[in-house]
Amino acid sequence: MEERRELVRVALGKEEASLVITNGNLVNVYSGELLEGLSVGIKGDKVAFIGTDVTHMIGDGTEVIDASGKIVAPGFVDGHFHMHVPLDEFLEHAIPRGTTTVFVELDLGYNLGYEAAIAELANMKGQPTKCFGLATFYLSPPPYLKQEGFALSLEDYARLLERDDVVALGESNWTGILDEDNRVLTSITAALARGKRAEGHGSGAKGNKLVAFAASGISSCHEPVNLSEAIDRLRLGLYVMIREGSIRRDLEAISQVKTENIDFRRLCLVSDGLNGEDLLSLGHMDFIVQKAINLGVDPIKAFQMATLNTAEHFGMGDVIGGIAPGRYADIVILPSLTKIECEYVISNGKVVAKQGKTVLHPRKCDYPESVLNSIHVPGPLQPGQFAVVAKGRRNKVAVRAMKLVTEVITQEHQASLPVVNDLVLPDLDHDILKVSIIESRNNTGKMVTGFIQGLGLKSGAIACSYSWEVGIPLVVVGTNDEDMATAINRVIELQGGLVVADNGTILAEVPLRIGAHVALGSITDTAHRFKKIKQAARELGCPMSNPFLTLQTIPGAALPFFRITLQGFVDLKNQKVVDLIVE
Amino acid sequence: MEERRELVRVALGKEEASLVITNGNLVNVYSGELLEGLSVGIKGDKVAFIGTDVTHMIGDGTEVIDASGKIVAPGFVDGHFHMHVPLDEFLEHAIPRGTTTVFVELDLGYNLGYEAAIAELANMKGQPTKCFGLATFYLSPPPYLKQEGFALSLEDYARLLERDDVVALGESNWTGILDEDNRVLTSITAALARGKRAEGHGSGAKGNKLVAFAASGISSCHEPVNLSEAIDRLRLGLYVMIREGSIRRDLEAISQVKTENIDFRRLCLVSDGLNGEDLLSLGHMDFIVQKAINLGVDPIKAFQMATLNTAEHFGMGDVIGGIAPGRYADIVILPSLTKIECEYVISNGKVVAKQGKTVLHPRKCDYPESVLNSIHVPGPLQPGQFAVVAKGRRNKVAVRAMKLVTEVITQEHQASLPVVNDLVLPDLDHDILKVSIIESRNNTGKMVTGFIQGLGLKSGAIACSYSWEVGIPLVVVGTNDEDMATAINRVIELQGGLVVADNGTILAEVPLRIGAHVALGSITDTAHRFKKIKQAARELGCPMSNPFLTLQTIPGAALPFFRITLQGFVDLKNQKVVDLIVE
Repeated sequence: MEERRELVRVALGKEEASLVITNGNLVNVYSGELLEGLSVGIKGDKVAFIGTDVTHMIGDGTEVIDASGKIVAPGFVDGHFHMHVPLDEFLEHAIPRGTTTVFVELDLGYNLGYEAAIAELANMKGQPTKCFGLATFYLSPPPYLKQEGFALSLEDYARLLERDDVVALGESNWTGILDEDNRVLTSITAALARGKRAEGHGSGAKGNKLVAFAASGISSCHEPVNLSEAIDRLRLGLYVMIREGSIRRDLEAISQVKTENIDFRRLCLVSDGLNGEDLLSLGHMDFIVQKAINLGVDPIKAFQMATLNTAEHFGMGDVIGGIAPGRYADIVILPSLTKIECEYVISNGKVVAKQGKTVLHPRKCDYPESVLNSIHVPGPLQPGQFAVVAKGRRNKVAVRAMKLVTEVITQEHQASLPVVNDLVLPDLDHDILKVSIIESRNNTGKMVTGFIQGLGLKSGAIACSYSWEVGIPLVVVGTNDEDMATAINRVIELQGGLVVADNGTILAEVPLRIGAHVALGSITDTAHRFKKIKQAARELGCPMSNPFLTLQTIPGAALPFFRITLQGFVDLKNQKVVDLIVE
Repeated sequence: MEERRELVRVALGKEEASLVITNGNLVNVYSGELLEGLSVGIKGDKVAFIGTDVTHMIGDGTEVIDASGKIVAPGFVDGHFHMHVPLDEFLEHAIPRGTTTVFVELDLGYNLGYEAAIAELANMKGQPTKCFGLATFYLSPPPYLKQEGFALSLEDYARLLERDDVVALGESNWTGILDEDNRVLTSITAALARGKRAEGHGSGAKGNKLVAFAASGISSCHEPVNLSEAIDRLRLGLYVMIREGSIRRDLEAISQVKTENIDFRRLCLVSDGLNGEDLLSLGHMDFIVQKAINLGVDPIKAFQMATLNTAEHFGMGDVIGGIAPGRYADIVILPSLTKIECEYVISNGKVVAKQGKTVLHPRKCDYPESVLNSIHVPGPLQPGQFAVVAKGRRNKVAVRAMKLVTEVITQEHQASLPVVNDLVLPDLDHDILKVSIIESRNNTGKMVTGFIQGLGLKSGAIACSYSWEVGIPLVVVGTNDEDMATAINRVIELQGGLVVADNGTILAEVPLRIGAHVALGSITDTAHRFKKIKQAARELGCPMSNPFLTLQTIPGAALPFFRITLQGFVDLKNQKVVDLIVE
C-alpha cells in the first residue's frame, strides 16, 4: 500500500523519482503507437509516471538518463523458454540483450521430480530480471505403452500450481490429450481452476484433432511452423507463440502473417530455449524482434509480440510488458525503431546493462546433490550388452529401422541387415547404425537396442545423457558395440554429457552435470566444447549440424512416426508396439 | 476434469454435442475476422468445436440450429454496470438483447454494508447468464471533510475480494487516490495482490493527476467523455470503457477513435447501468454495438469491444468473450453484421432467448429485511425543520447557492435572497429553490439546508431517497417548506422512492424499496411511474428531462464544483467547507 502511495506522490511531484528517462520516443504497446518526446519517471521497481515533463520529480537522488533521439521500449519477455545453460549464465548474457522476463519450463522438475523443480524456482528468485516457472507436463505417452515412472506426480503438479512463481501448467503434448490421458486432463483442469494457463504443444495437430486439443483448455501453442498452422490456432482462441530459437526457427515462415488483416494480439515471439552458442552469437529476444522487423513485420507489432501480448497471455498485462504508471519498470533504450541494440536495459527500476555489458550480475545458482548426480544405472556397460540377437540360422534379417526424415522426424524403414553368429550387424554402406537407449534414473538396467538410418557415422559412436522420454534414457548411436560402450560409459562417469568416441578413445565431450542435461560453468567454455564435439561428430562422418538434437529426440513417443522406447519399438501411426525383427 | 474429457470427445465425434449451430458466418474476435460457413458444436455449457463440418457430433440428442446466412457472434459482455432495476427484471429484458455476462457494481453493499453485498451476489448466482460482482468503492471524501460512516469496512472489502464471484475492486474515485486516502490505497492493493482488477472513476482527471491516478494501480476508467480523454487513458495502459447508458452517453464523441491508427484491444463498450425506460425502449449492449457500427466503427472491432476486450480486462479472455473450444457457449445469432437484432441468444450452452423473447427466465431475486427497510430517520419532518435562519435584522442576505451548470455539475453562485422574520426565503423569480439533505441510515436526524438554482420548479417540491454520498442522505428540493416536508415524509413512508408533491398533495411517486434505490416489481410498471413522475415535475415547472438524476448527485463531494454535504457546503476547488451565508 505504501508503494502505491509513493508512486502517486512521485507522479504528482511530491516525492522524487529514483530514475528518470527523459525525452525519448516511447513505444506504447497499449495504444500501439510510437509517441515522441516522452519521459518516464521511476520509483523503486515501478514506473510512476509517463509524460512530456518530469522536472517536477527530479531531486538530488534522481538518476537521469537522457534518451533524446532514442527509442524507449518495454523490456523483452520470452514466453516459452527451456534452460539449455545454467540460469545465471543465461541471464548474464540475456540481460544486455534486453530480456527482462522469462517464462521457464521447469525441465529439471519434469526430469528429476519435485525437489529439482523447487531448486529451479529458488534459483529464479532474486535475480536482476523476472523469471516465472511453468510446471512442465510434456508427454502423455500413448496408453498402449503403459508407461510409468513420471518424475512429477499429480500432487506435485497441484503443489507447484499453488505457488505464485508458477504461472501455468507447462507444455502438454496434444496426443496425450486426444488419448484422454487422465494425468494431463487432471493437470490442465487444476491449472485452469487456479486461473492459470495450460501451455500446449500441438506439433503437427490439425483439423478436428487440433480443435479437440483446444477444447481441452489448452491456452497456447508454440508449435506452428507455417502461416496456415499459426492462423488455424489463432482462430481457435489460442495464443500462438512463434518460435525462433535453437530448437526450431519458425519466424520467417510465420512472418508472412504481416500481410494478413488479422488481430495480432494473440501472437507472441518466443525462443523456446537457446543454447549457449546461439545466445552468444545471435542474442535472445533482441535478435528475434530484429529479425521480425527485418522480415517486414510492423515494428510496433513486433514489440507487442515480444512484450504485452505475452504478458497478457499469462494474465500479467497490468503488471509487466509495457511502460505505464504502476507497472514494473522494465525498459530498453535503443538507437532506433529498427535497430534492436540495447544501449540501456532497466529491470525492476534498476539499470542492469549498459551498451551491451551487464552491470547488475545474476545471483549464482545452486543445485542440490540429486540434480548434480542424477544418473543411476547398474554400472559400466559391456560391449556385449549392445548385441542384437537374431535366432535361427540365417545370413540376413529384415529389421524395422528408424529412418530420419528430418533431424527429429522419423519413419519406419525396413532394412535387410547381415547376421553373423546370430548377431544382427549394422550396415554402414547404407548408413544403418545401431542405437541403444538405457533407462538412467532408477537403476533398472533396462535397455533397448535397434537401428537407425541417417546419422552418417562411418566410425565410432556418439552418446548423450538427455532425451525427451519418460525415465530420460541415455542414448547412444554407433557403428560398433565397443565404441558405443566407451561413449555411454563416459557419459555415465561424467554424470551427464555428450560424448564422441572412436576406436576406444574419447574424441570430444561436453559434460552436462545439471540434471544430466545442462552444463555447469561458463557458457563460453560450453559453447566451445559444443563446437568441438560437433566437429568431432562431423569428422566421423555425421553430416548434421547438431546430431545431439537428433539423439535427444530418438526415444519417446512424442514425435512422429517410428520410435524406440523403453517399452520397445513404437509405430505411432498404428499405435502399437512392434518387433524389431520383421518375421 | 470429466468436463474437459467430454469436450475433447465431442470435438473428435466420439460423443454427441448437446447443441450445434450450423453454417453461420462467425465473428472471430480472437483473429479479428468474419469467417464464413462455420459451425459450432456445444456440449453442456461450453463450446467443444468450431469448424466447417459438425456432422460427426450430431446425435439423437443434439439440438440443431441452422444459421445459414446468419451472423454467429459471442454473447455481449457489459463490463461496467449499475443495477437500476431488480436483477431478475433486468435479465428478463437484457437476455433477449444478447447480454450473456454483466459485471455489476455492488451498490447495495456500498450503501448498506456486507450483508446487502452478499444478498446481491446470491441473487446473481444461478441465473441464465453470468453476473460477476465488483466491490464498489466509489468515494474517498476529501480529507478535510473527515467523513465517516462507510457501510463497508476495509475488512469487508478484503472478504469480498477473496470470493470467486467478486472479480475486482469496484470503481474508485480519482480524487481520493490523489488525496492518498488510506482506505482506497489499501483496497486497491488488496485487489491487485489477489490478481484482481481495481476499477477507476477518473471523471475529468487530466495531466499529471491522471497519470498519478493510473500509478495507483487502477486498471480502467469509464469516465472519458471525448476522444482525447479516451486516448490519454489508453496511453497510460488503462482499459477505457466507453459508456453509453442512462447516466451518460459518450459513445458518439469517442467513436471518432475509429479514424485513429491505434490498437483497440483496451477499448470496451459498457452501459454503466440502465434505467427501465432505456432498457425497454433502446435495449442493452445490442443497442450500444449497433450504435457503434452506425457511427462507423468497424463491426468486428465493435464486437471485440463488447466481448473479448472486456473479458480480457477481467482476466477472463480464455473463459468468456469469444466463440472457441473450451469457452462458455455464450452466443448470439444475428441477421447481419450491421443489424444487431438477436434471433437467438445462447448462454451457458442453452437457448435463453429466441426472436426477442426470453425462453429461459431469470430466477427471482430475494432481498433481506435490511435491504427492504433501509431508511432510518427519527420520524416525520416538520416544515419548520427546513427553515434557514439569518440572524440580525435585515431584508436581504447573500448566500452561496449551488448553480447547476449541467444536470450534474454545479458551481457556487452568490445570490441575494429575501429575509422575512429572520428566515431566508427562496427566490422563485430567479429560480433559486431550497434544497435539504437528511442523513438516512443511522437515525442521526442530521440535516443540512441550502439553496439551488436551475431546477425550475414554480411550485411544490421533489424528493428522492438515493444519493451519491456517504450515509446516502435523502434529498429534497422545493419552493416551500410545507411541500418539502410532505414530499420527504412520503419518501420515508415508502422506505425509499421519488416523490413530487404540491400544495400538500402527492402528485406522483415511484417507490424504490430495494435499498431505497431500486424499485421492486415489474420494470414496465416502474418505467410507467417514472414517466408520470417526470411529467409531474415538468408540470411544476422543471424543464429537465430527469431532475431526479440531478437530485441524486447534489450531495457529496464527487462531482465539481460546489456541493452540499452532511458536513456543510463544500467548495471543491478550494478544498474547504464554507458557510451558507456570505458574511
